[in-house]
Amino acid sequence: MNLLHTTLARIVPQDADWRAKAKARLDQLIMPHWALGRLMDLAVDLAGISRSMAPAVASKTIVAMAGDHGVAVEGVSKYPQEVTPQMVLGFVGGMAGINALARLAGARLVVVDMGVAADLSPLAKAGKIVDKKVALGTGNIARGPAMTREQAVRTVEAGIEIVDELAETTDVFGTGDMGIANTTPSTAVVAALTGLPVAGLTGRGTGIDDSQLAKKITVVETALMLSRPDPSDALDVLAKVGGFEIGGIAGVVLGAAARQKPVVVDGFISTAGALLAQVLCPASAEYVVAAHRSVEQGHPAMHARLGKEPLLDLGLRLGEGTGAALAMNLVEAARRVLTEVATFDEAHVSKAT
Amino acid sequence: MNLLHTTLARIVPQDADWRAKAKARLDQLIMPHWALGRLMDLAVDLAGISRSMAPAVASKTIVAMAGDHGVAVEGVSKYPQEVTPQMVLGFVGGMAGINALARLAGARLVVVDMGVAADLSPLAKAGKIVDKKVALGTGNIARGPAMTREQAVRTVEAGIEIVDELAETTDVFGTGDMGIANTTPSTAVVAALTGLPVAGLTGRGTGIDDSQLAKKITVVETALMLSRPDPSDALDVLAKVGGFEIGGIAGVVLGAAARQKPVVVDGFISTAGALLAQVLCPASAEYVVAAHRSVEQGHPAMHARLGKEPLLDLGLRLGEGTGAALAMNLVEAARRVLTEVATFDEAHVSKAT
Repeated sequence: MNLLHTTLARIVPQDADWRAKAKARLDQLIMPHWALGRLMDLAVDLAGISRSMAPAVASKTIVAMAGDHGVAVEGVSKYPQEVTPQMVLGFVGGMAGINALARLAGARLVVVDMGVAADLSPLAKAGKIVDKKVALGTGNIARGPAMTREQAVRTVEAGIEIVDELAETTDVFGTGDMGIANTTPSTAVVAALTGLPVAGLTGRGTGIDDSQLAKKITVVETALMLSRPDPSDALDVLAKVGGFEIGGIAGVVLGAAARQKPVVVDGFISTAGALLAQVLCPASAEYVVAAHRSVEQGHPAMHARLGKEPLLDLGLRLGEGTGAALAMNLVEAARRVLTEVATFDEAHVSKAT
Repeated sequence: MNLLHTTLARIVPQDADWRAKAKARLDQLIMPHWALGRLMDLAVDLAGISRSMAPAVASKTIVAMAGDHGVAVEGVSKYPQEVTPQMVLGFVGGMAGINALARLAGARLVVVDMGVAADLSPLAKAGKIVDKKVALGTGNIARGPAMTREQAVRTVEAGIEIVDELAETTDVFGTGDMGIANTTPSTAVVAALTGLPVAGLTGRGTGIDDSQLAKKITVVETALMLSRPDPSDALDVLAKVGGFEIGGIAGVVLGAAARQKPVVVDGFISTAGALLAQVLCPASAEYVVAAHRSVEQGHPAMHARLGKEPLLDLGLRLGEGTGAALAMNLVEAARRVLTEVATFDEAHVSKAT
């Protein structure tokens, strides 16, 4: 608990002076006012986050957190649970969607075993993944809590530890996830935190049919009725209806915020993690770049709660960090707008009449 | 007219077999079906365009077409006309928004004088820009035609010539524009082609106020009433209410389509060019990647007509090719998804139940 507390204590809001300084320059660039729209908003955020007019964005790391979910036995996913370790192997082998897009982004991919229901120790020993395994999958939230409160703390601290290890060599963090059935606990998290009706927040995840969707809604409703998580207590929500990788992602967000680095948050599962981080420390959301709006039905409610408009809307529903990898290009673009475009005075261009 | 005719004759639709082949592979990638959404749609397009399962995307060129507009005297822009050559100088000096974003995309920027109302011959002689100047700005469309039909043909052929010169060294083309007041003729083009009411298509361009907006609407309405362009005749529309750079962009689209290369079309002005190309040859639209939805009010009507959903929606309203530069990253991403992600069989991952 000590690492979590010290980390939370270190998080402060973005710096208003650096934001103002960036805005003042962007106001004067040789273009109609704020003509690069959201890129300029993002540039202001980067300045406020990094306390710099030349925010560092060159070194990127995507942390892909993997974990399994007891609730998978309820038939809420199209895929069997064995796919989680298989996909971890895919990540390690460079064969998955996130590998392709992380390579394009020039981002390092760090794969973390937060609690996959398989023995991945050979991969960890070989240095291919980071071992932060809490248990062999969570409990089935339709029957009881996902994990103990102590385990919840451990997941968040694991995420912080990962950031602490990578911070020296990382300018921009990204989050990603892998875990069969993990849209179910993520839905439960956003429902618990917002109090919105479960049916409106529950999506088709990997592509389940109508009867599985109805089942999934019932499962989430049951989990919430059974455990009654306290929405003001992120660790309670995480323990009762969350997941190991969701807690790990919350930790990555908190760790990045504490180190004043931007963290590009991927899709539905990652945003659930960012929401938990926000409850633990509201200012942490100021370090979050919302990568994209996924097709998962509850994602807009998450972004609304987080106070973020996602950058991309490309019909993605993969997770893994793929949307974060794509959005990193826009983070770089924002930096370039701030640092590489001349002002009217510098370029001797006539101003608006 | 010969080059235009031979080019139009060379344009054929995307190849259905290559599209099917790409789709068959993408259907089998280790992820829920079509979980990378629009990237996968784009990958199918790239295969159909390039007749390849490994579409070439490495070499990128953004063609930024500059021209002036007689209608600027009507007060439809916030900026004086002298800004057009000043911004051309900015492009040449590497100081503008497009320079920053083209560098990020790894794209070469080719600046073309299609008809700037200033002597840019020193820049052309120094090899800094390409000289395709048709005249020192168009006629004022509020009073008469923008150009003659012969000039209209010349602009389109200039765009084709540019592509022909660059095609050997370019895998992906992008379009861009610079020309004070050019949202006004672009609005007239989309109004002429769609028959939609001008008021609903007219936006604030560089950021004009309500009274200027009212004036701009009147100007476009007057231009259309005065010249009655034939919506089935793109050269008539271009000559009567278009612009030199708009015609040049139409030529770039046609040239890219003839050479079976994707062309990433930027914002409002570029899409006006793509619409004219579509009227000249409907199949040309199959080579267009719509980069982004700008804040310009008439842009969605353009995309609807073109049959395209833009990739990005970032509140951009700059032009220059900036949106195209950003979208090039997604073109690369689409290729990587097609070529770098394993199938279930290749990776030994369990399939959906």
